[in-house]
Amino acid sequence: MNLLDELQELLGPSAILTGAETHAYTQDWRERYDGRALAVVRPASTEEVAAVVRLCAQSDTPIIAQGGNTSLCGGSTPDDSGRAVMLSLQRLDRIREVDTDNDTMVVEAGCILQTVQQTAQDAGRLFPLSLAAEGSCTIGGNLATNAGGTQVLRYGNMRSLVLGIEAVTADGEGWHGLHGLRKNNTGYDLRHLLIGSEGTLGIITAATLMLYPLPTASRTALLALESIDRAVAVLAAARDGFGPLLTGFELMAGNCLHDVVRTFPQQQLPFSGPAAEMPWYALLELSDHESEQHAQERLEAVLGASIEAGDVADAVVSESLAQSQALWHLRESIPMMEKEAGKTIKHDISVPVSRMAGFVHDTNAALQEAFPGIVHVIFGHLGDGNLHYNVAPGADWTEAQLLARQEDVHRLVNDRVHAVGGSISAEHGIGRLKRDVLPDYKDPVEMALMQRIKTALDPHGILNPGKVLRS
Amino acid sequence: MNLLDELQELLGPSAILTGAETHAYTQDWRERYDGRALAVVRPASTEEVAAVVRLCAQSDTPIIAQGGNTSLCGGSTPDDSGRAVMLSLQRLDRIREVDTDNDTMVVEAGCILQTVQQTAQDAGRLFPLSLAAEGSCTIGGNLATNAGGTQVLRYGNMRSLVLGIEAVTADGEGWHGLHGLRKNNTGYDLRHLLIGSEGTLGIITAATLMLYPLPTASRTALLALESIDRAVAVLAAARDGFGPLLTGFELMAGNCLHDVVRTFPQQQLPFSGPAAEMPWYALLELSDHESEQHAQERLEAVLGASIEAGDVADAVVSESLAQSQALWHLRESIPMMEKEAGKTIKHDISVPVSRMAGFVHDTNAALQEAFPGIVHVIFGHLGDGNLHYNVAPGADWTEAQLLARQEDVHRLVNDRVHAVGGSISAEHGIGRLKRDVLPDYKDPVEMALMQRIKTALDPHGILNPGKVLRS
Repeated sequence: MNLLDELQELLGPSAILTGAETHAYTQDWRERYDGRALAVVRPASTEEVAAVVRLCAQSDTPIIAQGGNTSLCGGSTPDDSGRAVMLSLQRLDRIREVDTDNDTMVVEAGCILQTVQQTAQDAGRLFPLSLAAEGSCTIGGNLATNAGGTQVLRYGNMRSLVLGIEAVTADGEGWHGLHGLRKNNTGYDLRHLLIGSEGTLGIITAATLMLYPLPTASRTALLALESIDRAVAVLAAARDGFGPLLTGFELMAGNCLHDVVRTFPQQQLPFSGPAAEMPWYALLELSDHESEQHAQERLEAVLGASIEAGDVADAVVSESLAQSQALWHLRESIPMMEKEAGKTIKHDISVPVSRMAGFVHDTNAALQEAFPGIVHVIFGHLGDGNLHYNVAPGADWTEAQLLARQEDVHRLVNDRVHAVGGSISAEHGIGRLKRDVLPDYKDPVEMALMQRIKTALDPHGILNPGKVLRS
Repeated sequence: MNLLDELQELLGPSAILTGAETHAYTQDWRERYDGRALAVVRPASTEEVAAVVRLCAQSDTPIIAQGGNTSLCGGSTPDDSGRAVMLSLQRLDRIREVDTDNDTMVVEAGCILQTVQQTAQDAGRLFPLSLAAEGSCTIGGNLATNAGGTQVLRYGNMRSLVLGIEAVTADGEGWHGLHGLRKNNTGYDLRHLLIGSEGTLGIITAATLMLYPLPTASRTALLALESIDRAVAVLAAARDGFGPLLTGFELMAGNCLHDVVRTFPQQQLPFSGPAAEMPWYALLELSDHESEQHAQERLEAVLGASIEAGDVADAVVSESLAQSQALWHLRESIPMMEKEAGKTIKHDISVPVSRMAGFVHDTNAALQEAFPGIVHVIFGHLGDGNLHYNVAPGADWTEAQLLARQEDVHRLVNDRVHAVGGSISAEHGIGRLKRDVLPDYKDPVEMALMQRIKTALDPHGILNPGKVLRS
């Protein structure tokens, strides 16, 4: 019996997709990679995932785990060989437990992030991970890539929100590591090894997540800023003045917001006069556990000082949930505006906050010198030192011309990121997109250790081969 | 040339201790393990550490890294063979950098925790890790054991406070992974693999630590409680009411505090009447980023509600830093009181907070049935679900009688911890003390994966052999 027949026998024919049905799984969201798969299998339980892996392992068949297929790095799509089995985790979508006394919930890998957020909120708790793809990305993908987003400043990345995991090894064995403990020092932390390993070391099937108290009030402010140096100064004042109440600090170049309101006419920039033409804007979010009035008072006190110091040119503060959502919607529309405008060259970089302003000044200038007239599309999570530092063709270049220079643009930006102690992938991961440049920027000893770990946990190299590492 | 001569040539004779000079290093703090070493070597730089490891690796000589020698599990002392080289990291004690704009500092492994806390404070920042041994334990030991302590509720364990590490591999190669980035998704997280691995996978020589804003005001309250169920209810109310301002929630059985004031007459329990005879007390800490007045108001509001609900029988609130320190000193004196009183049987356990009250009720009863008259010494970090659940002989047993039943006591407690989804080592690690029972409670697939990782990163088994894993 061949593998396809065996898989059908195991899961039933309705859980196996082949041919044209696989296309939604084999092409990535950015439409940069379009591979082929032997089949897409859709198991419904951890036991079925383990059984699929055991079957595939017998013939050294590559297995590519996939959640919502929202990778920005081609992390969960197959190569062109047509040999791989794609293992969709979408049917593992149960919320297994919500424990409000322990402030934890146990969810399966296929749960949509937004569903998890909503379930927590319905129980009077906050699950803080928040990112643009939250309506379609899954917890399994968030785990596999150690997802970041807009609340990292306060709550950390995905890995900071996970207490225990359940996973299937490359041998098809089930590791039952779900627990709801904030302290557990019983040997090596394999949880953190699997989180962020992009499905190359094991397949995470469920996780115990940490919940937080739900804030009772929040305020969002959109700040108009004369320079990125001012933005860094306001961030420092906000960290100090708000302490743990500061839950978001997003930076956006002026042209990004101007393009958003041009592309989506139903949206508006809530400024007029010079403040409507600023080179930079920041979105600041304050989450309060006391009262609406207290949130308002704190915002006025801390923001007032930054206005007085001349760091903030103008500010708009949300006075309702709807206004707050409208401000966030401006920020969240930037990637969609980018996609509407055509292909760009993307960098998901981080640098120490203390090096941020200098990095942006110098790298913008170097890019203009090397590629005159290109357009900078810069936005992201300043509070974490993480920017999406993208490049668009503008009027002087065609898309094709710019993409032909893609490797040169990457090289220039990545070299400068590396020179200031930064990272060439802050929150999107490596996948296939950055695999080949990773060794240029990563410590060689660390690369060698990663390879040893891969060989130890997946000796036949069947788990998402060619992602993160070459083999 | 033999290894000792080679080490002397490498580091100079003054950096090598032998014979009786090694005793302070070869015996553990609890005086349970007293081994022998070929020598204690005291390198002064990462390069020297790497050179020592390379020399030892040539003859497969075991290497035991040690910081402040404060392990409670025999994690950093040698066996009786006299073959091991002990590698003290105490001379790697430089603060390499404090970056207040990035809120990070780079410190070497031999820095004393208290020095790091003080350096951060001098720069107007908080390094939140705080534990009883902070005056003598080192950052390297904190990293190797993923130290916990009293601020985990708000700031997480040691691993949550580390952005990058520098380490030496079992081959004596230097891995330069220091960076100050809050987001960095470039491959497997080897940082978290080394943190908590107790020196068995690599030797951490330096780390980039996260700093936090320094609170502007704090309040400490000692609460008298009628039951542990009340304590859990007050914790829930405090989490909800204080949100991120709640930075500590310690639980202490009444007999612990009564014994502290009896043992150390300069200390006093600040209650009289029935509140002085309560079965449980809790220490609650609030850290405010606004003002003294705001801290006071919040404390009164939230604590007032718990008093009104009948959950808190009586409360004393610090009105000065000195009073706050006196309250904390009561808590911190419990381990010293224990040590004065003689040997006890210790358990460093965690269970989900939602299972805590039931666990303590049931396990106390089961212990009394099996070992009538033994005394429970229970205190710890209720906010993290972590208790030091210890057993003392009391009047009915001699120390020797009790210690003769040690394994039976451990078995009873650990089985019950395991049954409610808890951990047999919450914050102290495994070391030698719990190595042989670990496989009884850990998922077998996870144990096998740990062994594979050990073999991959330390194929000749020279790094702290016999700790965590049998080989």
